[in-house]
Amino acid sequence: MAGEFALIDRIRARARSRADVVLGIGDDAALLAVPPGQQLVVTTDTLVAGVHWPDGTAPADIGWKALAVNLSDLAAMAATPAWVTLALTLPFASAEERSAFVDGFLDGFCELADEHDVALVGGDTTSGPLAVTVTAHGLVAPGAALHRDAARPGDDVWVTGTLGDAAGALAQWRARGPFSAKLRYRLDRPTPRLAVAAALRGLARAAVDVSDGLLADLGHVLAASGGLGAALELGRLPTSRTLADHFADERARWPLQLSGGDDYELCFTAAPADALAIEMALDAAGCGAAVIGRITAEPGIRLTTPEGEAWVPGAAGYEHFGRA
Amino acid sequence: MAGEFALIDRIRARARSRADVVLGIGDDAALLAVPPGQQLVVTTDTLVAGVHWPDGTAPADIGWKALAVNLSDLAAMAATPAWVTLALTLPFASAEERSAFVDGFLDGFCELADEHDVALVGGDTTSGPLAVTVTAHGLVAPGAALHRDAARPGDDVWVTGTLGDAAGALAQWRARGPFSAKLRYRLDRPTPRLAVAAALRGLARAAVDVSDGLLADLGHVLAASGGLGAALELGRLPTSRTLADHFADERARWPLQLSGGDDYELCFTAAPADALAIEMALDAAGCGAAVIGRITAEPGIRLTTPEGEAWVPGAAGYEHFGRA
Repeated sequence: MAGEFALIDRIRARARSRADVVLGIGDDAALLAVPPGQQLVVTTDTLVAGVHWPDGTAPADIGWKALAVNLSDLAAMAATPAWVTLALTLPFASAEERSAFVDGFLDGFCELADEHDVALVGGDTTSGPLAVTVTAHGLVAPGAALHRDAARPGDDVWVTGTLGDAAGALAQWRARGPFSAKLRYRLDRPTPRLAVAAALRGLARAAVDVSDGLLADLGHVLAASGGLGAALELGRLPTSRTLADHFADERARWPLQLSGGDDYELCFTAAPADALAIEMALDAAGCGAAVIGRITAEPGIRLTTPEGEAWVPGAAGYEHFGRA
Repeated sequence: MAGEFALIDRIRARARSRADVVLGIGDDAALLAVPPGQQLVVTTDTLVAGVHWPDGTAPADIGWKALAVNLSDLAAMAATPAWVTLALTLPFASAEERSAFVDGFLDGFCELADEHDVALVGGDTTSGPLAVTVTAHGLVAPGAALHRDAARPGDDVWVTGTLGDAAGALAQWRARGPFSAKLRYRLDRPTPRLAVAAALRGLARAAVDVSDGLLADLGHVLAASGGLGAALELGRLPTSRTLADHFADERARWPLQLSGGDDYELCFTAAPADALAIEMALDAAGCGAAVIGRITAEPGIRLTTPEGEAWVPGAAGYEHFGRA
């Protein structure tokens, strides 16, 4: 610049540390002490302006979400988050604009990092079109991670929280009509289901986070588990009261819940015999969850209405490309 | 898309693995077995189109460089590289254009990854302005990492390889005049000094990689080491024959060597008593290095011409912002 090193100092001043951070921001790389007997879990996700959040989203919400989507991936592995790096590409002409954005961004980012004792240990700042890449590191005991490839025929299919709220907010934003602040909050401030994931170790079989939409993400589990299928009951999709109020017609709502991304709930499978233990574990973790169907040996996902009719949604999945 | 998951499959098909990768590309996160008794070293760097490489740079060169700049940070810590994640933001309208870019990108990326036994364990693909963020993970024994804050007054200041070649290439590209393919190769295909770094464990005190320019990066070492200074002799700057041929006027060449980024050589300090041991270690590692001056208790960097005159360059440093 003028300003890259000043900006890094600004970020460093707000970066949380932990006892296992031997060396944090400020050298060529971070130096981290991995606890003995733990495996390392690593995930990375990029959010790009114009693609991953509606125009006008507050910098604090972008900061929260950039971290949340990564922590959600760690949750899907049942890992405990530890350290993150942050690569920020900033388009602003002046150091003042950059600082204002970064200060707001860090408000949201650090709020979520503090909540989960996550240390920001390094990163990069570059000039260019606004984008954020976070790489998150978690820890898990060998054998305790949840994988996508472990579903079995006869497993219950579970979903945490509620589905479709974020997609509802996006639909309202696109329609430029009346909107619900509650739905919008679910889009801007997703909750990574870390407490749930920890509670599910040893109980759940396969797990995935619902980032691209239930059908797409459950589809990954089915494909990874050797080409299985699922029978889902649409009447059992967990639905918030707010979503039901704003999208009263269930045939307009189901596609939001089946194919909308950005919910960051967990979808997992488990033996039906473990259902009670799972309910108790999730109660203790403070998060609801619902069984929405069952894994089948026959490939494909079959959907049934509350009236018992087969149902096929218009869009079969959801991918980030083309979301803009 | 059409295409995000197909693109990920394409990348996965070419991703190298290693025995310590428990779970690579294809789940919510990678699962890695950190060897007992090793600390984890993590660094992340973003390259952005229009900022970090000249227009028209081959995708293979972008792929090489995106990995090389990260491995260079690991080298500066004397770490051995192990695993990387790759976040690609791609602007192309069609799946064919995306695939063509990614195939070329992977040619360069995988060539360098294979050379250093680095496994690609995860990543993200998003739609947006072309940018690449790599996060690299290395391993080092506790206490063996080189830090920036360990320089002492009286230390020799060393630089590996030669300085200024990349900046020379960039100057020629900007002038749109005659150019040297050798210099351009140094800009496009920097060599991370990993073998050198391994050889310097226990010999060097402080180290940094020269990514932002010698004065800026040595300045980081001096600041981190408690506000020290350095006295450098311009006549001892290691200079390639090609750079000397193309920039014969040393007063035009020195600024390229002092303030030009992108060389990715190592600058390190060491006790003068260790000079012979260092020369022998570097010989064995197959890389030349030169002593260019000495660390001083007095702050600031003083430059002396071969005639013994004090010299002050026009630009005192180099930062990525504003490079475009």
